[in-house]
Amino acid sequence: MKIKKILIGNRGEIAVRVIRACQEMGIKTIAVYSKADADSLHVKMADQKVCIGPAPSNLSYLKMDSLLEIAHAYKADAIHPGYGFLAEDAAFARKCEEENIIFIGPKADHIDLMGDKIAARDTAKKAGVSIIEGIEGDVEKADPSDFPLLIKAAAGGGGKGMRIVHRPDQLKEAIQEAKKEANAAFGDSSVYVERYIENARHVEVQILADSHGNVVHLGERECSIQRRHQKLIEETPCAFIPDTLRDRLYTDAVRLTTETDYVNAGTIEFLVDVDREAHYFIEMNTRIQVEHPVTEMVTGIDIVKEQIRISEGEELSIKQEDIVLSGHSIESRVNAEDPENNFMPSPGLISEYIVPSGLGIRVETFCYSGYEIQPFYDSMVGKVIVKGETREEAINKLKTTLQSFYVEGIKTTIPLHLLILENNEFLEGSFNTKWLENSHLLANQK
Amino acid sequence: MKIKKILIGNRGEIAVRVIRACQEMGIKTIAVYSKADADSLHVKMADQKVCIGPAPSNLSYLKMDSLLEIAHAYKADAIHPGYGFLAEDAAFARKCEEENIIFIGPKADHIDLMGDKIAARDTAKKAGVSIIEGIEGDVEKADPSDFPLLIKAAAGGGGKGMRIVHRPDQLKEAIQEAKKEANAAFGDSSVYVERYIENARHVEVQILADSHGNVVHLGERECSIQRRHQKLIEETPCAFIPDTLRDRLYTDAVRLTTETDYVNAGTIEFLVDVDREAHYFIEMNTRIQVEHPVTEMVTGIDIVKEQIRISEGEELSIKQEDIVLSGHSIESRVNAEDPENNFMPSPGLISEYIVPSGLGIRVETFCYSGYEIQPFYDSMVGKVIVKGETREEAINKLKTTLQSFYVEGIKTTIPLHLLILENNEFLEGSFNTKWLENSHLLANQK
Repeated sequence: MKIKKILIGNRGEIAVRVIRACQEMGIKTIAVYSKADADSLHVKMADQKVCIGPAPSNLSYLKMDSLLEIAHAYKADAIHPGYGFLAEDAAFARKCEEENIIFIGPKADHIDLMGDKIAARDTAKKAGVSIIEGIEGDVEKADPSDFPLLIKAAAGGGGKGMRIVHRPDQLKEAIQEAKKEANAAFGDSSVYVERYIENARHVEVQILADSHGNVVHLGERECSIQRRHQKLIEETPCAFIPDTLRDRLYTDAVRLTTETDYVNAGTIEFLVDVDREAHYFIEMNTRIQVEHPVTEMVTGIDIVKEQIRISEGEELSIKQEDIVLSGHSIESRVNAEDPENNFMPSPGLISEYIVPSGLGIRVETFCYSGYEIQPFYDSMVGKVIVKGETREEAINKLKTTLQSFYVEGIKTTIPLHLLILENNEFLEGSFNTKWLENSHLLANQK
Repeated sequence: MKIKKILIGNRGEIAVRVIRACQEMGIKTIAVYSKADADSLHVKMADQKVCIGPAPSNLSYLKMDSLLEIAHAYKADAIHPGYGFLAEDAAFARKCEEENIIFIGPKADHIDLMGDKIAARDTAKKAGVSIIEGIEGDVEKADPSDFPLLIKAAAGGGGKGMRIVHRPDQLKEAIQEAKKEANAAFGDSSVYVERYIENARHVEVQILADSHGNVVHLGERECSIQRRHQKLIEETPCAFIPDTLRDRLYTDAVRLTTETDYVNAGTIEFLVDVDREAHYFIEMNTRIQVEHPVTEMVTGIDIVKEQIRISEGEELSIKQEDIVLSGHSIESRVNAEDPENNFMPSPGLISEYIVPSGLGIRVETFCYSGYEIQPFYDSMVGKVIVKGETREEAINKLKTTLQSFYVEGIKTTIPLHLLILENNEFLEGSFNTKWLENSHLLANQK
């Protein structure tokens, strides 16, 4: 069925992004917003707007029943959950299914499956996807040659309940700590243990799958520039892996998607080892990702529009053989944080906000001059995305674009991005997911 | 030679545009600005800035000797003239040549040649380019079947010294009037007479030529949506001409460029008749054009960077066979004018200025929230450019993008653009250069 009206179940830049896609498709939008977000750009852009409560997310953006009530009252056909908040909440997706509101994302069962990291791992293994060797049986009797080991929470994400263990005698205590932390974070103390892949890169594959059995991949994204498991810079293609490995990533991503009958957009995350030879499935994200624009820049495909079309029951508008990956795209996430003061959040009034624009330049943001950044949410103010012919050209363009992104009144992470973009190791590709944290660029951080 | 520093001999969005290209190429920039433009974005972006005088252009942006003095004093290798002001002033280009400052544009002789519309027409004729049949000999004895006729100023442009003559008995008086007007506007009363092509479209071809004899075209632009000879909306490709005609436009444009040994970027303007069968050369613009971004969007080629590289003596970075024209791009020029009040200029403080951004969206502007539009210059505040797969998608995207371009404090032409973009004749391609002026969209205008 044609979707006529979508409730945007999110805030910030992704709410603006989704509304733009809806407008271009002729779909009406309803913004729900917390009191703190009343001046946000997504509220201004939407056709209808409903305040759903005060700032804390559990009193507004996480209120499943309120969202559904509003969707019914305003006759929305669908809810787009964005990322974060309810985007990977199977219970919410299930409620939508039960109440005949289209949840723009996969089925609740797929969110459940991929949300349980042990089940996801088993599923990947069965599908023939390369996974990290697990420690079977009594993990406390693991062979010393298997170390270092990584303990992960089954319900996990964001580094919570995660422990690297270097020696057998540390294992027992580490497992207990991880269980405790996992329980506190997710209400589920299940953990599992696998070999720890040292100095690994994070490379992920974007897929699209429709309800007619068609699955395509849109290439990979290199996302190794991270701080505390949060990505800062993402790019496509990953310039530092051989094509044979790239093809194996694609094959595994499509295989997992196909074998699980997954439908909608998704991202299959892999680790690539330091030798750029082996790859390992780590998890599948069952939603639109923050870094999706770099993929759009090199493919020309609007992933949010594809999500909506897939949810309408349409076939994918593109076949794998028609997808051309052209040029190099890179994104910087700009946060309202002070990188020189331990990334202290820097909310407040933006007195000047001049957004760069030009050939191959794109900025996704919900802020503007005179907007007051609220302290209640994640601190991202915008994403600066550029495209060049080559990696070198794209990096150079990102640098000059960030330099002409004039933000006054708050501190931002732009200076840190400029340091990274000028760093030789970054330019040469000598980095991994721990590189930024260990680099001298953060040397003055606690 | 590598250009290390460029003086930007212009203001407004084109100054910002050129500075961005320079930054990406690692070239330093000097902004010259009038007192009225002190707060303009190009002044903020440039590496060095020099105030050259008060607002009237003849006391600032047109002061050739001041520009050259500053170029020498600040050790600029080159001057980029943008469009307007000195961009097509052969005397200025010649002074630059004499003083060993690179004029980023063609040679002075080529500006001279194409600036003289009679000489340009003769040159095109000799090169085998299709031109409008002229009235040779004693024009006052023109055959009645040749009417209507068009009188044009040799030094012309912008409609000045131009007259359409429908009947033989009106000719004599019309020529006298045209001569008088031409003399007042250009200090040159020469006029020439040719057949008037009724209900014609304006279609132009972008070319690039280097100093090594390489010439390429970058496709055509449809620029028929005009008011008083000023373009409002431009797009590429022209969706309403057959490919055979398109190929003839390309061939003629490349031929004229090659035959004249023209070097740098240029635009060959043609009229296409109402039957979309015949085409006629009208003039060649020897500079970057306002509407160049639509060509960049479908080719991925940065025309300003190519201008600079050509001026460095480099070969073109692309061959004709490698140029792929992909998708459809369209641009709206947004002016600070009140379309409901006879396009009265609307200078003043911009209290809100939220620029849209997203996949396939580009806005070229020098304004921002809190900027005060000055009354001294042309009224363009920005250009909104989008790209879609098809014309329909691009038009639709331009519409939603203009709707989310929030400008407060001044009147703009955005509402008129929205009316045009929703008009059936526009959508069907049933328009010509007089269409807008004759349409009901301007019905309430004087």
